[in-house]
Amino acid sequence: MDQRSIELDQHTSYLPCQSALERMASYFQTKRLSAADLEAQYQILYDLVGASPTDTFVFTSSAAEAVSQVIWSVFAEVSRKEGKTQWIASCLEDAPTLQMLKRCEELGGAVKIAPVDQQGRLDIEKLQGLITPRTALISVTMAHGLTGVIQPIEELCRLTREKGILLHLDASYALGKTYFSFADSSADYLTFSGERLHGPKASGGLFAKKGRPLVPLILGGSEQGGLRGGPFDIPSFMGLAAAAHLGVLSMNVMGLEVARLRELFETEIVRRVPDAQVLFKDALRLPNTTAIEFPKVHADALLYILQGKGISPNQSGGYCQHLHSVIAAAGLMHYGALSFSLSRMTVQEEVICAAERIAEVVQQLQKVSEDLF
Amino acid sequence: MDQRSIELDQHTSYLPCQSALERMASYFQTKRLSAADLEAQYQILYDLVGASPTDTFVFTSSAAEAVSQVIWSVFAEVSRKEGKTQWIASCLEDAPTLQMLKRCEELGGAVKIAPVDQQGRLDIEKLQGLITPRTALISVTMAHGLTGVIQPIEELCRLTREKGILLHLDASYALGKTYFSFADSSADYLTFSGERLHGPKASGGLFAKKGRPLVPLILGGSEQGGLRGGPFDIPSFMGLAAAAHLGVLSMNVMGLEVARLRELFETEIVRRVPDAQVLFKDALRLPNTTAIEFPKVHADALLYILQGKGISPNQSGGYCQHLHSVIAAAGLMHYGALSFSLSRMTVQEEVICAAERIAEVVQQLQKVSEDLF
Repeated sequence: MDQRSIELDQHTSYLPCQSALERMASYFQTKRLSAADLEAQYQILYDLVGASPTDTFVFTSSAAEAVSQVIWSVFAEVSRKEGKTQWIASCLEDAPTLQMLKRCEELGGAVKIAPVDQQGRLDIEKLQGLITPRTALISVTMAHGLTGVIQPIEELCRLTREKGILLHLDASYALGKTYFSFADSSADYLTFSGERLHGPKASGGLFAKKGRPLVPLILGGSEQGGLRGGPFDIPSFMGLAAAAHLGVLSMNVMGLEVARLRELFETEIVRRVPDAQVLFKDALRLPNTTAIEFPKVHADALLYILQGKGISPNQSGGYCQHLHSVIAAAGLMHYGALSFSLSRMTVQEEVICAAERIAEVVQQLQKVSEDLF
Repeated sequence: MDQRSIELDQHTSYLPCQSALERMASYFQTKRLSAADLEAQYQILYDLVGASPTDTFVFTSSAAEAVSQVIWSVFAEVSRKEGKTQWIASCLEDAPTLQMLKRCEELGGAVKIAPVDQQGRLDIEKLQGLITPRTALISVTMAHGLTGVIQPIEELCRLTREKGILLHLDASYALGKTYFSFADSSADYLTFSGERLHGPKASGGLFAKKGRPLVPLILGGSEQGGLRGGPFDIPSFMGLAAAAHLGVLSMNVMGLEVARLRELFETEIVRRVPDAQVLFKDALRLPNTTAIEFPKVHADALLYILQGKGISPNQSGGYCQHLHSVIAAAGLMHYGALSFSLSRMTVQEEVICAAERIAEVVQQLQKVSEDLF
């Protein structure tokens, strides 16, 4: 497999799985689904996030749309009506959350950004200091796509429940990679991307606990109980359900085999490049993700050369999730760090081969650095 | 073709054409499009609406989303900033327009509804009476999906240009059925549905003239020049372009052959049911649509029986476009009217067979009515 391309960018580059594509194709000519058909597919999505039957689900065209809808709902129904015009997001959030909160700010209100600690985890104490009686919503990603660091969701749930603040979890990077029960948590909203589950490009969704404020973002008609205008995209919905089904089935593969391969990848890298450093290794991380610092190497140069050699690291998890900015936010100084993520389709041979090629390039670049300085 | 189903609901029920499906399928594994590929496909969409290269296009998940984005842009950038907080829509508009304007109204402002005349056409004089110095936007559908009546777009353009009011045209029902040049008109925005062009379910778009206020509805990142967050759905975009290409190619078929078949359909109905009345026949209409009144028959009963016999009339053009309400808005009283629409795939045999079956059912229902009263 010498020059075969190896994709270690499972968090930032996606294609639908075969199963999603086949399912989509078989529904292109379907005008209406039976209630029973719909019910079964919805159940798969509810199972994926551990939602209760009383929770509301809205099928959207992307996670970005789902996030926009949740924040708009809180703005329109809570902030405007009750005067609770402050919102908090972590510094790890992706563009949809940050930009939508900024829009709300323009309409009247203030957004506060909560910092992370040296382990890339939300600093709950500092977050607590930002809360005021006017705080309507806290919006946090469940896990960071580039560092893999899982956020302290339980503590966050406890805090928001105590303070009577709505909690939105962005589960795009976490779903299918960690067990989570929306029903058992006190989170109020959960959004996710279908693309990141190897579902169709134009798919995503949101869950809202029963009774939580929820209004449409895209208006027009009674589709989805009046919660989203525009036609219900049957093929994409069915494709998403197919991908979610595989996601649920392969949770154990993620937690065991993929975690083993990630460990092997890290070990192989460090064995060959002894000064390489696995970042945030002591934090709870997603099983498929690692960020590695290569001293005396510039990340951009390394990325460029690796791509030429058929290795694809993660590039950036959306518009705002740059690896260097989350490293800086954690108070660290690293300029040679790259992020890699594996999928359930990654095999051992790829991992070892990638580690070899990466080590080779790093050693060359380190040699250049040493010669220069 | 005795009991074969005949679809005369081309305005309210759609499936993607084969060409769109095949194009989609061939892009499911594509991560990125080359600039040249994109350019060529964009050009097809620009050609479809006669847009100028300086106009902006945003690819959306539906017409509803496109409409929401246009209205939100005007609200955020004009109404809020300049205090122009009045908007006008015709009484023919579909749910996305009416509901989004209502949302703006809740945020501060007022929406006025412009009436139609007895020919189902927007009453320009009455519309003019609604305009105030605070009017920011007029939003009008180019043609009504159920009556087929084409609206007086030129007069509307003249009026809005004179008064310095932004004009949004909802082209969902008109595109591919009438020639129109967005560039040559003074309209500011144009939105359309991909589904209604036999494109993919989750596709639509908006055009905005250069310099017109335009902000994203779905936020998140720099996709589409920052005008729409969420991943760019390559397969759906390519499928839409394929459908639009066929739409452009078959404009003549629409204007000649489909118009002939519609005429034949009306003639065959009236020949068999002499008191049947083609509605809005003196107005300029889309070539594929007709609304026919069957006296002494209730439309719901007729619809129900026809469906059982494999004939599908239009049901309702979206949430708000009910045939009875547009008939009432035109000051007419008809309770037995149904709407039918043909496509470029409709053939003469279907049209004659449908007219026969419809006439038969109408005669039976009229007989029942006569026996009862």
